[in-house]
Amino acid sequence: MVDDQLVRKLAGLTQLYRDKRLDLFHEALLEYMRRPGKRIRPLLFLQAAELFQPAESAHLLNELVSVATGLELLHAFVLIHDDLIDSSDFRRDLPSLHRSLEDRSKGGQPARTGSNLTIVFGDLLFALAQKCIIDTRIPVRATLLSKLLDYVFDTGYGEIADILLGEGCISQVSAREIKWMYQCKTARYTFECPLVLAGIIGGLTETELRQLAAVAQPAGLAFQIQNDLKEFVRGVQGGLSDDLVEGKKTLLLCTAYDRLGPEDRMQLRNLLGQKSRTASDLRQMQRLIVKSEAVAEQEAVVEQLFQQTCLAIESPMLRPEIQTGLHNLLQTIRRLIQTS
Amino acid sequence: MVDDQLVRKLAGLTQLYRDKRLDLFHEALLEYMRRPGKRIRPLLFLQAAELFQPAESAHLLNELVSVATGLELLHAFVLIHDDLIDSSDFRRDLPSLHRSLEDRSKGGQPARTGSNLTIVFGDLLFALAQKCIIDTRIPVRATLLSKLLDYVFDTGYGEIADILLGEGCISQVSAREIKWMYQCKTARYTFECPLVLAGIIGGLTETELRQLAAVAQPAGLAFQIQNDLKEFVRGVQGGLSDDLVEGKKTLLLCTAYDRLGPEDRMQLRNLLGQKSRTASDLRQMQRLIVKSEAVAEQEAVVEQLFQQTCLAIESPMLRPEIQTGLHNLLQTIRRLIQTS
Repeated sequence: MVDDQLVRKLAGLTQLYRDKRLDLFHEALLEYMRRPGKRIRPLLFLQAAELFQPAESAHLLNELVSVATGLELLHAFVLIHDDLIDSSDFRRDLPSLHRSLEDRSKGGQPARTGSNLTIVFGDLLFALAQKCIIDTRIPVRATLLSKLLDYVFDTGYGEIADILLGEGCISQVSAREIKWMYQCKTARYTFECPLVLAGIIGGLTETELRQLAAVAQPAGLAFQIQNDLKEFVRGVQGGLSDDLVEGKKTLLLCTAYDRLGPEDRMQLRNLLGQKSRTASDLRQMQRLIVKSEAVAEQEAVVEQLFQQTCLAIESPMLRPEIQTGLHNLLQTIRRLIQTS
Repeated sequence: MVDDQLVRKLAGLTQLYRDKRLDLFHEALLEYMRRPGKRIRPLLFLQAAELFQPAESAHLLNELVSVATGLELLHAFVLIHDDLIDSSDFRRDLPSLHRSLEDRSKGGQPARTGSNLTIVFGDLLFALAQKCIIDTRIPVRATLLSKLLDYVFDTGYGEIADILLGEGCISQVSAREIKWMYQCKTARYTFECPLVLAGIIGGLTETELRQLAAVAQPAGLAFQIQNDLKEFVRGVQGGLSDDLVEGKKTLLLCTAYDRLGPEDRMQLRNLLGQKSRTASDLRQMQRLIVKSEAVAEQEAVVEQLFQQTCLAIESPMLRPEIQTGLHNLLQTIRRLIQTS
């Protein structure tokens, strides 16, 4: 349902501004949005909304789907600008939006046109995301949007932290800084935001909303670390690993660095200090990370974070039926991430 | 008042995410926002709000100033992304934000860091602009934001049209296309948006709101053409003229092209086709534009557009006191633009 709405909302916008020269670029944008994704944010939001307000959620279904679509559009906006910032060539195993637009550009500077259109399309998706929320008939829609914008501030500052961490040497980056960046950049808008928005619609008290945030925080961080681990394993198995190619300062990489001896550290520093990395450099980095046993350490961290999440769910501040529902929701999401 | 709030809102955001590494960049952003500007959008909005609802506007003053601040923040967001897209080095006679951030970057790739931070700061200002509206106590705040987002779509598609026009040869660009682009990219959010938002708060009818848009459309276009003319004259007098340096397809340039003979046209085409233009190229372009007498033609177009605006104000669909108020407002804005 969210997938249908995503395409319908976007097609609605592109129809408003039809122009022959734009057709190819609109095609690229629609193809990008149609790529299958896990749709974690809409799922979390819709399931939580049903959990908090079972009686009314059927009645409000169209409105709730519209908010869920807004959350997915917000996510697309974040990814699109993030890939441009990171100069990432791929997203979901296909060209990133700026590369896809570049490929379709017929002007003299295709890379520049691709980047420029990506900045604007990102801005437009951000605006469309908000339209999806503000144009519903949900009585608290203004509160929802205000809260959503607070999470956008977090995401933006997480992105800025990521940009600045990318500049420093790995020896100067602490695990604490990376965790803060993960929380701000991804975890909050992925986990906390859908749960809290559903909670606001469901009329939860301030105390309950705060406790929901306490549930979402470790879960969101666990999800991001799991993502890094999956990407690393995929790279070792011969697939693409943008993180290593780009020399991103992931928690996994920094943990590996901390665990290695002085000679291995120096080698890792040198590999990361290069402007770009060859296939042989990447294999060397993978070997160093495997040697450090950082993967096992990070897997244990993920387990701990999920235990923290469960403990937070058990809080007496949440009603028993909400506790049961959140446990089930957490399991659903974990399965979804493991099998994706 | 709007100037104070601008700085206060931005300082509030930067305080939330204080970090030593960010201080220099925050300083750049605050310096950028403090630069004196004409503040046309807040002025139009506040004066129109008082005109439409004189009894309540004093009572709502703080809320109205907050919306006005949101409009100026939206404008800053648009300029910041636009300058990055155009690779403009200057804004308001000082470095554009991406250059200013680049100058403060201490990493190995200052230009890249400057661009990347500019993308994110732009996004953050857009979010902050919306917070300024949605967090007010104005009962119709959701309607205001929904309407504002419609104008953001226009601006985004105007920006896209500008990017694509920039790619084509001047011989293939029509005055009609440029006018459409001006309307979308600048005119609507500058003139129509402040007037219509004020009209919504003032409880104007749908018919009155449509007529306000009809008033704003020629005025907005006139303003944009005047801006081009002022920039051209400044360039001839020895100042900076980004439009010519960047080879922008302004209405003035296309009018000049249309009015010139075949040899002069070819020369202009060649000058525009170059990747960059020397000081002597710029002087040659200026000479060709002066020779074409396009300036006088465009000045006459501006006059006509202002006459259209006056006629639209005189419509029986607007009450007499609103007509008088709009005439005064138009005069104020014209004076402001002429003397700035």
